[in-house]
Amino acid sequence: MAKVMILMGSASDWGTMQETARVLSQLQVPHEVHVASAHRTPERVRRLVAEGEAGGVQVFVAGAGMAAHLAGFLAAHTTKPVIGVPLPGGVADGLDALLATVQMPGGVPVATVAVGKAGARNAAFLAAQILALQDPALAERLAQERRASGQAVEEADRSLQLDTT
Amino acid sequence: MAKVMILMGSASDWGTMQETARVLSQLQVPHEVHVASAHRTPERVRRLVAEGEAGGVQVFVAGAGMAAHLAGFLAAHTTKPVIGVPLPGGVADGLDALLATVQMPGGVPVATVAVGKAGARNAAFLAAQILALQDPALAERLAQERRASGQAVEEADRSLQLDTT
Amino acid sequence: MAKVMILMGSASDWGTMQETARVLSQLQVPHEVHVASAHRTPERVRRLVAEGEAGGVQVFVAGAGMAAHLAGFLAAHTTKPVIGVPLPGGVADGLDALLATVQMPGGVPVATVAVGKAGARNAAFLAAQILALQDPALAERLAQERRASGQAVEEADRSLQLDTT
Amino acid sequence: MAKVMILMGSASDWGTMQETARVLSQLQVPHEVHVASAHRTPERVRRLVAEGEAGGVQVFVAGAGMAAHLAGFLAAHTTKPVIGVPLPGGVADGLDALLATVQMPGGVPVATVAVGKAGARNAAFLAAQILALQDPALAERLAQERRASGQAVEEADRSLQLDTT
Amino acid sequence: MAKVMILMGSASDWGTMQETARVLSQLQVPHEVHVASAHRTPERVRRLVAEGEAGGVQVFVAGAGMAAHLAGFLAAHTTKPVIGVPLPGGVADGLDALLATVQMPGGVPVATVAVGKAGARNAAFLAAQILALQDPALAERLAQERRASGQAVEEADRSLQLDTT
Amino acid sequence: MAKVMILMGSASDWGTMQETARVLSQLQVPHEVHVASAHRTPERVRRLVAEGEAGGVQVFVAGAGMAAHLAGFLAAHTTKPVIGVPLPGGVADGLDALLATVQMPGGVPVATVAVGKAGARNAAFLAAQILALQDPALAERLAQERRASGQAVEEADRSLQLDTT
Amino acid sequence: MAKVMILMGSASDWGTMQETARVLSQLQVPHEVHVASAHRTPERVRRLVAEGEAGGVQVFVAGAGMAAHLAGFLAAHTTKPVIGVPLPGGVADGLDALLATVQMPGGVPVATVAVGKAGARNAAFLAAQILALQDPALAERLAQERRASGQAVEEADRSLQLDTT
Amino acid sequence: MAKVMILMGSASDWGTMQETARVLSQLQVPHEVHVASAHRTPERVRRLVAEGEAGGVQVFVAGAGMAAHLAGFLAAHTTKPVIGVPLPGGVADGLDALLATVQMPGGVPVATVAVGKAGARNAAFLAAQILALQDPALAERLAQERRASGQAVEEADRSLQLDTT
Repeated sequence: MAKVMILMGSASDWGTMQETARVLSQLQVPHEVHVASAHRTPERVRRLVAEGEAGGVQVFVAGAGMAAHLAGFLAAHTTKPVIGVPLPGGVADGLDALLATVQMPGGVPVATVAVGKAGARNAAFLAAQILALQDPALAERLAQERRASGQAVEEADRSLQLDTT
Repeated sequence: MAKVMILMGSASDWGTMQETARVLSQLQVPHEVHVASAHRTPERVRRLVAEGEAGGVQVFVAGAGMAAHLAGFLAAHTTKPVIGVPLPGGVADGLDALLATVQMPGGVPVATVAVGKAGARNAAFLAAQILALQDPALAERLAQERRASGQAVEEADRSLQLDTT
Repeated sequence: MAKVMILMGSASDWGTMQETARVLSQLQVPHEVHVASAHRTPERVRRLVAEGEAGGVQVFVAGAGMAAHLAGFLAAHTTKPVIGVPLPGGVADGLDALLATVQMPGGVPVATVAVGKAGARNAAFLAAQILALQDPALAERLAQERRASGQAVEEADRSLQLDTT
Repeated sequence: MAKVMILMGSASDWGTMQETARVLSQLQVPHEVHVASAHRTPERVRRLVAEGEAGGVQVFVAGAGMAAHLAGFLAAHTTKPVIGVPLPGGVADGLDALLATVQMPGGVPVATVAVGKAGARNAAFLAAQILALQDPALAERLAQERRASGQAVEEADRSLQLDTT
Repeated sequence: MAKVMILMGSASDWGTMQETARVLSQLQVPHEVHVASAHRTPERVRRLVAEGEAGGVQVFVAGAGMAAHLAGFLAAHTTKPVIGVPLPGGVADGLDALLATVQMPGGVPVATVAVGKAGARNAAFLAAQILALQDPALAERLAQERRASGQAVEEADRSLQLDTT
Repeated sequence: MAKVMILMGSASDWGTMQETARVLSQLQVPHEVHVASAHRTPERVRRLVAEGEAGGVQVFVAGAGMAAHLAGFLAAHTTKPVIGVPLPGGVADGLDALLATVQMPGGVPVATVAVGKAGARNAAFLAAQILALQDPALAERLAQERRASGQAVEEADRSLQLDTT
Repeated sequence: MAKVMILMGSASDWGTMQETARVLSQLQVPHEVHVASAHRTPERVRRLVAEGEAGGVQVFVAGAGMAAHLAGFLAAHTTKPVIGVPLPGGVADGLDALLATVQMPGGVPVATVAVGKAGARNAAFLAAQILALQDPALAERLAQERRASGQAVEEADRSLQLDTT
Repeated sequence: MAKVMILMGSASDWGTMQETARVLSQLQVPHEVHVASAHRTPERVRRLVAEGEAGGVQVFVAGAGMAAHLAGFLAAHTTKPVIGVPLPGGVADGLDALLATVQMPGGVPVATVAVGKAGARNAAFLAAQILALQDPALAERLAQERRASGQAVEEADRSLQLDTT
């Protein structure tokens, strides 16, 4: 049963948003993915949110570019945490989507991460951090992942020392 | 019976959006005005659009700042022309709202005008230009208004000549 | 007899502006296309506007980049609706053209859409929405197009489910 | 026992960050507040994070402007969710702080909200949404708050109708 | 007989553009000033250019904000040098007007100076530098002005030494 | 004997600045070209300016990117007109160079044109317009060039009509 | 005998640049201050640099806004460290000066600090850090200052605890 | 024994930061290089700073992109001069990193240079200029390098004269 629902407005966003799915899989967080548009299929987005909440989804992740309304649209229809991933492609190459995602009115927050693939990955880590407050095993997997990431940096330093001396 | 419906997300936007109402009144275009929020009262926005279309509204005007989703939300629920007025107040002082308003996905356009009061005024002129395609008397009022505005510039030039010589 | 006139300042803009022509053709809206420059052939632009209005043109669409004066130049010579498509190529890659297009003085609006091809497509949809107020068959084609676009999103979701499960 | 710890780099940020505290109080979420600087007292920030985690803090909120490292510094020292509130005051008036807060490396996310007071308020709502996943009474308070906010919009519309007719 | 014609789109620009007139007076360069709008009185702008050229105007100066088409409009109707003064007031507070003024198509240049009063002053100096190529007395006045401005800086340094020691 | 001196800070700018030389050659304006750096060879830049003025140079053109001080450095050492061509390559891709070129202090103007090749071409046209005030044959060549450029636009329109019908 | 020379282009910059002088005084670093302009008194700036170097100046600090050439001009005439303080006042309110100061060509660096008063203070700290490499007593004063600044943050936290409980 | 320590957050930054190492080698300044992350290995960064200071490091250089906290993190843990090299890769392509690097709080300066390779090279020159205050032989090598760079510009000018005549 999915704990996280990932939505994107167009199938062309999947190249980026699959990073969210990939990291969630790696952290063993059950999730589902949908293409649904706030502007072309608003009714379907509302139905997905309602069905997701009923089915146990705890966190929503939305990726959107240009006018980037999808995450805000979700946030208007749930009080569960919504994470927004701004996507590049607009005239300001993602900065526009970032501002359209993060600047929500009071009481309807969107937890915003960086633009593009870097953000898509961190959306998964953030969702996992939220779920880990109720799931000690997941918390431990996150801690391991953090240690591994530090060790990779130290390993890179050792390689560099070999290369430069 | 209103031909134009003006919407804004918060009563605090009225200081700007009443410019749209003022110019429409001056051009004798019947209109109605509502406060309704894409994020706090999405269901009510949908009802206003449906009732407006049923009651003869031909053009919608939406003013919104920050994430600025209101005009796009309207456009997703009608195929009548929607005019968006970006409002200042965000971190990029209206440029953010402009980009969130104008960058709509294909098939769901928002006719965007300038940020703030200047845009609110021109939203009314644009709505009137659209309605004037079916209303020769309104077309004539627009032409008169254009001539009067040119005469005001010429008058300003005459005053300047007196002041500087 | 053309209902929409599309203008662009240089033949090199045709790669973008043919999107407007393509969507208008698909929606069965008669239109004509011209290359004419506000800076190199201002007299010819004025003549095209006058002849267009006399010949039944209801909506003008102008694509321009850099200083991007063409849409505003048209708007100064007609009170029919003018739609502006900002084109990339300037130092701010289209944001400059967007600001030069949208920030018109009071009484001389330009209905502005997104930068580049996305905007060129939506200029056609917006022109059609305006004309459809007097043309129920066109209104129905727009409604069909909207439904088809929603169905395409739903189809993309079904494909994604097959791919990811 | 505090569930949320709010940090800011300077006492002068309290004018903004007390909005987070005020909303948390209104939602009955226990919290504590500290002034501590990533650059002037890094050791103290580390100690506060460690003591907070040991004492039951579930979510951290950090407000910072200019180089805006505080939220990221926290995120480097915990795997609990960290919410960043970018503050104005830099050369890009908060946009700089937003980019310094949101663009974190993979595995070390900061859940970013809007710049300034609007963001400070939504940081509280977001923290509450995260905690509400384990606290049905808090979830109900959030739902009530959402309904109340919708009713306030509807009330504003009624007032506007009275004013404009 | 005027050697320089100063144009502005609105009487409200006179507060800035009188700096151009003031510096030209100080340098004893005969000039005239007009309010005329590229969008509201395009025909009148064309007439002013033609009459100006016939009457001996050698350099045109145009101040404009927002869409800022006036300088480019002049440049399209003359091959005399045109100096553009971008004015603040748009959403990007003059940067928009700067980009709309400076980014002219090939063969139709606008000599652009800084935004606002600083630019208005330098428009006069630039016009004078151009005219001084044919006017040795004016060239000498410019050289004197340059020396005086250097002496003012040196005087400011002496005052500072007195203040700080 | 050169009437125009073109300077650039690095030989790598020649790819852009040769557009200035090309257009000047086409307009039969004698010119010379130098590589000289405000930061690496400031003394040599001063000598080139002095020798140029002594030898009859009337207009200076400087191309520079990044910190883009070259045009301003020239302007500080002459009261002849200086035209600045901002070059791309900095973090804001030419917008930085534009602002560093155009925002000169009072009394030391730089006539600024667009960024990159478009600007380099218009620097030549602007220099020619300035020189043409004393050279009727050059003025006539500029007028011919303007007419030819208009005819090229009309020809492009005719080609487009053939292509699209 | 001055170890640090502070330069600014206009006496009006003294309101900001006296922050540099104030912090240097507090750290007991001998310094001198001059008004001198890269554009109005370039020869004088060169003389000040030469006399400063001869007299024992080790570090130069330059504050400049708009085109902001002063720090780069200094750097072109010395190989001693030059610290640049970008000043607000341009169209991008200091971001323009920052880019004009920091983007120096290879081999001619300017050590750039933040825009305005914050930067002016840190220019003094940076100059002191550089001089402290040869001056253990100054190094100790810097360390004390750092500790005092940390203690001030801790004191602010204690005050806040008293205020909020 | 290293006088300069170069740090970067990821091995992928080495392509840029090796420019710093290369120029330091050319100027015969002993240096060491490390990969260490403010967010993934904060403890290790602190240890490197402490060991570096103990071992005689006089100047630190840090390259970082996106949130770009590394240079500031170093500055918080030493009172030796810290030079920051902003790296591209974020949504504002290095401008974000520049603002996150340069805008440090009072008393904790980062000497900031340009974005990317140009900045990486100048970080080395700046470090050498600082060290040269105590090392006359290094000062002489810097002066030679400056002369050589001027001669290269003059040589480029001679080549251009041959090419263009």
